[in-house]
Amino acid sequence: MSGKFVYSFGGDYTEGDASMRNLLGGKGANLAEMIKIGVPVPPGFTITTETCVAFYENKRNYPEALQDQVRKAMRKTETTIGKGFGSSSKPLLFSVRSGARVSMPGMMDTVLNLGLNDETVKGLIAGSGNARFAYDSYRRFIQMYGNVVMGIEGEKLEVLLEEAKTRKGVALDTELDENDLKQLVADLKKRVLEITGKKFPEDPYDQLWGAITAVFDSWNTKRAETYRKLNNIPDHWGTAVNVQAMVFGNMGDECATGVAFTRDPSTGDYLFYGEFLINAQGEDVVAGIRTPQPINEAGRKDSKLPSLETVMPDLYRQLVEVYQKLENHYRDMQDLEFTIENHKLWLLQTRTGKRTVKAAIKIAVDMVTEGLIDKPEAILRVEAEKLDNLLHPTLDPNAKKELIARGLPASPGAAGGEIVFNADEAETLSAAGRKVILVRAETSPEDINGMNAARGILTSRGGMTSHAAVVARGMGKCCVAGCAEVVVDYAQNCFKVGDKVFNKGDIITLDGSTGEVFAGEIGTIIPQLDGDFATFMSWADECRRLKVRTNADTPHDAAVARDFGAEGIGLCRTEHMFFAEERIKAVREMILADTLAGRELALAKLLPEQKSDFCGIFKAMDGLPVTVRLLDPPLHEFLPQSESDIKELAEIMGVSLAALKERTEALHEFNPMLGHRGCRLGITYPEIYDMQVRAIIEAACEVTKAGVKVSPEIMIPLVADVKELSFLKERSRAICDRIITAAGISLEYMIGTMIELPRAALTADVIAQEAEFFSFGTNDLTQTTYGLSRDDAGKFLPEYIDKKIFTNDPFVSIDIDGVGTLVEIGVTRGRTTRPNLKVGICGEHGGEPKSVAFCHRTALDYVSCSPFRVPIARLAAAQAALSEA
Amino acid sequence: MSGKFVYSFGGDYTEGDASMRNLLGGKGANLAEMIKIGVPVPPGFTITTETCVAFYENKRNYPEALQDQVRKAMRKTETTIGKGFGSSSKPLLFSVRSGARVSMPGMMDTVLNLGLNDETVKGLIAGSGNARFAYDSYRRFIQMYGNVVMGIEGEKLEVLLEEAKTRKGVALDTELDENDLKQLVADLKKRVLEITGKKFPEDPYDQLWGAITAVFDSWNTKRAETYRKLNNIPDHWGTAVNVQAMVFGNMGDECATGVAFTRDPSTGDYLFYGEFLINAQGEDVVAGIRTPQPINEAGRKDSKLPSLETVMPDLYRQLVEVYQKLENHYRDMQDLEFTIENHKLWLLQTRTGKRTVKAAIKIAVDMVTEGLIDKPEAILRVEAEKLDNLLHPTLDPNAKKELIARGLPASPGAAGGEIVFNADEAETLSAAGRKVILVRAETSPEDINGMNAARGILTSRGGMTSHAAVVARGMGKCCVAGCAEVVVDYAQNCFKVGDKVFNKGDIITLDGSTGEVFAGEIGTIIPQLDGDFATFMSWADECRRLKVRTNADTPHDAAVARDFGAEGIGLCRTEHMFFAEERIKAVREMILADTLAGRELALAKLLPEQKSDFCGIFKAMDGLPVTVRLLDPPLHEFLPQSESDIKELAEIMGVSLAALKERTEALHEFNPMLGHRGCRLGITYPEIYDMQVRAIIEAACEVTKAGVKVSPEIMIPLVADVKELSFLKERSRAICDRIITAAGISLEYMIGTMIELPRAALTADVIAQEAEFFSFGTNDLTQTTYGLSRDDAGKFLPEYIDKKIFTNDPFVSIDIDGVGTLVEIGVTRGRTTRPNLKVGICGEHGGEPKSVAFCHRTALDYVSCSPFRVPIARLAAAQAALSEA
Repeated sequence: MSGKFVYSFGGDYTEGDASMRNLLGGKGANLAEMIKIGVPVPPGFTITTETCVAFYENKRNYPEALQDQVRKAMRKTETTIGKGFGSSSKPLLFSVRSGARVSMPGMMDTVLNLGLNDETVKGLIAGSGNARFAYDSYRRFIQMYGNVVMGIEGEKLEVLLEEAKTRKGVALDTELDENDLKQLVADLKKRVLEITGKKFPEDPYDQLWGAITAVFDSWNTKRAETYRKLNNIPDHWGTAVNVQAMVFGNMGDECATGVAFTRDPSTGDYLFYGEFLINAQGEDVVAGIRTPQPINEAGRKDSKLPSLETVMPDLYRQLVEVYQKLENHYRDMQDLEFTIENHKLWLLQTRTGKRTVKAAIKIAVDMVTEGLIDKPEAILRVEAEKLDNLLHPTLDPNAKKELIARGLPASPGAAGGEIVFNADEAETLSAAGRKVILVRAETSPEDINGMNAARGILTSRGGMTSHAAVVARGMGKCCVAGCAEVVVDYAQNCFKVGDKVFNKGDIITLDGSTGEVFAGEIGTIIPQLDGDFATFMSWADECRRLKVRTNADTPHDAAVARDFGAEGIGLCRTEHMFFAEERIKAVREMILADTLAGRELALAKLLPEQKSDFCGIFKAMDGLPVTVRLLDPPLHEFLPQSESDIKELAEIMGVSLAALKERTEALHEFNPMLGHRGCRLGITYPEIYDMQVRAIIEAACEVTKAGVKVSPEIMIPLVADVKELSFLKERSRAICDRIITAAGISLEYMIGTMIELPRAALTADVIAQEAEFFSFGTNDLTQTTYGLSRDDAGKFLPEYIDKKIFTNDPFVSIDIDGVGTLVEIGVTRGRTTRPNLKVGICGEHGGEPKSVAFCHRTALDYVSCSPFRVPIARLAAAQAALSEA
Repeated sequence: MSGKFVYSFGGDYTEGDASMRNLLGGKGANLAEMIKIGVPVPPGFTITTETCVAFYENKRNYPEALQDQVRKAMRKTETTIGKGFGSSSKPLLFSVRSGARVSMPGMMDTVLNLGLNDETVKGLIAGSGNARFAYDSYRRFIQMYGNVVMGIEGEKLEVLLEEAKTRKGVALDTELDENDLKQLVADLKKRVLEITGKKFPEDPYDQLWGAITAVFDSWNTKRAETYRKLNNIPDHWGTAVNVQAMVFGNMGDECATGVAFTRDPSTGDYLFYGEFLINAQGEDVVAGIRTPQPINEAGRKDSKLPSLETVMPDLYRQLVEVYQKLENHYRDMQDLEFTIENHKLWLLQTRTGKRTVKAAIKIAVDMVTEGLIDKPEAILRVEAEKLDNLLHPTLDPNAKKELIARGLPASPGAAGGEIVFNADEAETLSAAGRKVILVRAETSPEDINGMNAARGILTSRGGMTSHAAVVARGMGKCCVAGCAEVVVDYAQNCFKVGDKVFNKGDIITLDGSTGEVFAGEIGTIIPQLDGDFATFMSWADECRRLKVRTNADTPHDAAVARDFGAEGIGLCRTEHMFFAEERIKAVREMILADTLAGRELALAKLLPEQKSDFCGIFKAMDGLPVTVRLLDPPLHEFLPQSESDIKELAEIMGVSLAALKERTEALHEFNPMLGHRGCRLGITYPEIYDMQVRAIIEAACEVTKAGVKVSPEIMIPLVADVKELSFLKERSRAICDRIITAAGISLEYMIGTMIELPRAALTADVIAQEAEFFSFGTNDLTQTTYGLSRDDAGKFLPEYIDKKIFTNDPFVSIDIDGVGTLVEIGVTRGRTTRPNLKVGICGEHGGEPKSVAFCHRTALDYVSCSPFRVPIARLAAAQAALSEA
């Protein structure tokens, strides 16, 4: 850590720049950078993130040097703006804001108008010529400071404002005059003393240190921690504090405040897009309390309100100049905050704008066309995981729909579920497997957990940049915001639209791309992926080395995956084919047979069924490799478990109930995950695998004769020792070769194995003597490496994540330190024996971007994932290749 | 492979020696070696094991050069002995015997008297002057050759002998004269032709090649394969064939044949010990058909028959000279076969004699005293696993016993069980968990499986060197042999002793050290370990580097283990303490409590109980380290499972049945082995571990104050991630330090972890940042590394062993390639972080010699095993250290 804790900026000087994001936080670094490129920014200074870390490490004490550095920075700010902190003639007021390395919108505390007291308020009156504004700022400051710094519930001070209105017999804040507000200031201070036993601080520096401490403390509030956990932000980063001269958008009708995006964050269209309010403070826009006006005509969408372009055309032109400068400078879409104070434009913040994935792709493609960025940069700009939103179904246009309301299309996608009004309840119901839609008048950071749990969010207030809209887009949830027709009644647990009442538990469906709200649940369809998507994905494909296959068990899934760009099937699970109603009977006969002959009789019935499945899959994948895994689950999974089902089966099968129960009990296992399954079945009942191998190769021969190219890869699961594989491979190869010879064709096939047990990875050099390919089954490998049953872990894994014992759920993102080490050992040792060994992964990690990156680094040949995640894997693979280069 | 397939020996020349055991087999190498040191051995030649391997590799064809080399060796043998192969004047006859690298007694085929035909028999008559002997040899040859080489069931030729006796009206073979036998020879040849359609071969070379092929083929019979599997002899070693001039112990009363041990194989006493028969062939002694005579007066035991020392004193003196020469040469106890032909002594075989473990220890200790070997050699000579026999209980001398018969004390130890007459049945019943005693008139190699399955073996015929006696000693089974009072009636499934009848299923008890047979089951006691054992073990302790601890959960077990030499407790399982009747109630209250307060109330009841256990254990181990593992099994293991038990519990606990069932069901797990257990319990219910840690440290403080030195090591189980350990360690350390400070004493303790999950081994470098010691839990590590549930594997593991997919049960002997690799990784990485990290093993492998050797090589500090296996581990550790040096 350096001894410098404070970095100044303002006018034409700055001590920081955009490269110092880790030290100054995103906001501080960008304020400095804006100054550097000549954008008008109110002066101030940033206290570094290192100060925050030191503060926590040193039992909430500041480094000694800090106070002096703050005073020096203060003097510089005073000089720049020509006002004095605590001056009763020209008082300098400050905003004090948090600023972490990455944006955590609304998660931490802010204090505005800091520096006001009974003396400085006089200077504010003199300078603005507006006593009402000055006292309104003063009472707002006391309320905000009382709440944020002194810990008083907002409601307990807000009530004085209500009382003042009641006393005067008025309804609106604006109907209170300067005297009312002056009295309110006095009343508020008295109430603060009553509640806290402390006087409201008059000394501006006392105010300042209180606010700085409050911002640092807000790094460790529960809501901030939740947000960090959801977004994988390390706790040890800490936040910076930005102390910046206040400028006022609420000093009169020559004032305004707004937020803007340099391109449309929802569609990605090259359209300067934003919202503003005349005579308001910035938080009025973001909080969604007043419905804001559009910034320009092109972006007005459904608004009827006048735009900035119309109301203040000269300032709008300045703003356009600034945004173009910023976008060209940062070569990315920017999210701006601006304030107009008495017809002067100030930029308060610029940052990379959050966007929908659809917008992200369009902006990336457009910027390549515009020459702003190159293709690799474009590819790295789209978060692979978020493609999921694009790929998920949208509402079926032909479905019958009952439209009940229309709001803003705040975050695209579609979802249906039962109405819930409370975030915690949304979380509870979702955890119980229920699909819920969170409905709120407006959302606040306290609702984060519920928003994360819900399938979609509906608010009655707020605009496209409201809390609900911003957070939902970040999460990739569909959201309809500002749907004013919806009147929420929390007390009655319902909302009304006109005279219609929707109660908690009723089903509604949202379309976040149109802003529509429908009654009931509506069918969905697979989205058409547009030209930008195709262009973007083709660039990604040019960059990647990893192949992407899919896990598919049916011709239909195989076809869907091909459309998504799958380059083969990495895992075709044959057991799923056994569950169809007409087949399960034969399976059960096979299991219950006492003799080899009995089992072979039952298997003979299954052979044509399996063969026909394989024919379909081979045709769908025409020419691409298809890896078929032989039977994996323990046999008892195919038998009924309840008394009545067993009885029914006994009747159908014509065996005695006692015999059936005996057999069922004999098949019971204490730990089926570690039991008689996988190749262990193939070894005790070779006839089962014989039948499956025969079905695969007979199908391959048949389809080959019909002119389709086939590359079957037969995969033996759960191998722990090479001898299991050699036993089964020898047997299978004999069957395959006999069928191919009889068919009189030439057909190449491979026999390989899943590496899904630690022992297989550790002895991969020996296993590779037999295996012609490897496929890492990281689901089971994670279970055995951790000694953790996926089916049982749900009971304590959430507590593990809460207590930060596990950073991630290892079943979602591959555990690089443990499971990853085994994968590395497996690949290295396998290729020692067979240098060209084809190696893939077919666990669910195959479609998770961080895991895909790991697979790339570990030199796997392909990943395999569910059809809908194929594009995610393609993009993640490209990004991994680019990150390496 | 060299081009030399045949090695000659005889007179004063030999092409081989003892070092060529792998090539010539044990028997061939020793024949050559005996010639070399001047022992009289009949001449002959050995066909190498490589020839056998080549024979199998080349589809049962011989190497081209073989025939020529055999003819050359034949000529050399003819010259040496002065007879001719196929000569009608001085015919040379041969024995053709197998000879593998290690002895496989009785497992493979032998042909005697080879070379006889209608011409050569005349020469044999002329040479011996005994036509009856010559024709008896001839008919024996036809029977043996017909059976072994031509594949005719022995019974089908034997019946002709019976017919001949019936025709003549006599009862004994010896009552047939030369003419009867001559006729029998003709009849036998006719019968051979009838059965096989082939003439009995007259040409001596045809006979020879037939016999050689039969010996090679006998390497792959089922019984030989079974023996190899039981004794871990690789299939690819192959056998040699020894073709050796016949000498005859059955040419008259100046002839004899016998076997002898240079020391007593049962007790180890320095006593030349053996048995012989006048006028007999060697197999008559081994087969146990006639009861043999003692070789000398000192070793006559209960025999009333005249000894060789008395009957042929000069030959006995020659034999004594030879045995001393051999024992001094080989520096080990020898097992000899000799024949006296017309008053000339020939040695047919010498090999290291099998012995009981008691004898092995005595012989080793004596030979050190005698200066024959040094201590390291003595230590390496005793098979560690076999110590088990010494350590196992013997019959309680004070128990009431009903002696029913007395036989030879053929193999020491004592065992009781139900009578079974059939080897296969013994195997079946034993597999079903029943304790069986195999009772046979005599045993044959076909009975191996049943002998292995039985707890003890009783035969009515045969001596101390009979098949039953030799095999039982090798297996370490107790055996009473030659118990003539016992008359076995297979047809009635019973045996009679006088007029008493014992049926299949009746219980008897054998004392193999006294030869006594008792009715019913008799109590047993722990053996007193004598002075030789103590001396021997003290030598072992001088050599070893590995410490040996024990797994003990009670003060009693701890004391027993200390007596066996345990140097600490490596695993004290606290959950066993929870099952006592008065405690399980509190445990169940704890599990069923809904609240922390409820759990703490129940835990408070357990605290004094656990504390008192630990006090007892600490006292018993006075000064030695004690590793206590905190609660490991999932909580549902403590709850009743059946409906009626749950109901009863609900009443006792005063909770509703529904509530109890709900809680029980909520605790159900699909894979409890991979579930909510080990440190996962400590993390979700920290109060449980808190109580246990408190009990350990409070006990340690109390005992310390009483003047006992205590070294507690607290072990956290099932750690997968270092953060689990750091969470629990921090909490535990706070508790420990508070108690120690309050007690006002100084107490050192450690907090470490079990490494029993692959992830723990793989991330051992990070885990060692927190762990102060490691203990490898190789039971669970084997389960997770193989993905194999020990509780479920029983269903298919036997088939895996049968199909040779697994060479060993990995739960018995550590899997060096897989689990062992993880142990190595764990040790190496752990010590990278903490160079002096104390590392042990506490799985059941800790008492298995091969696994102990692995632990030594892997630089572990100690192994820990069950009390009775502590001496085995001590010896294995010494042997590992010596083998390395």
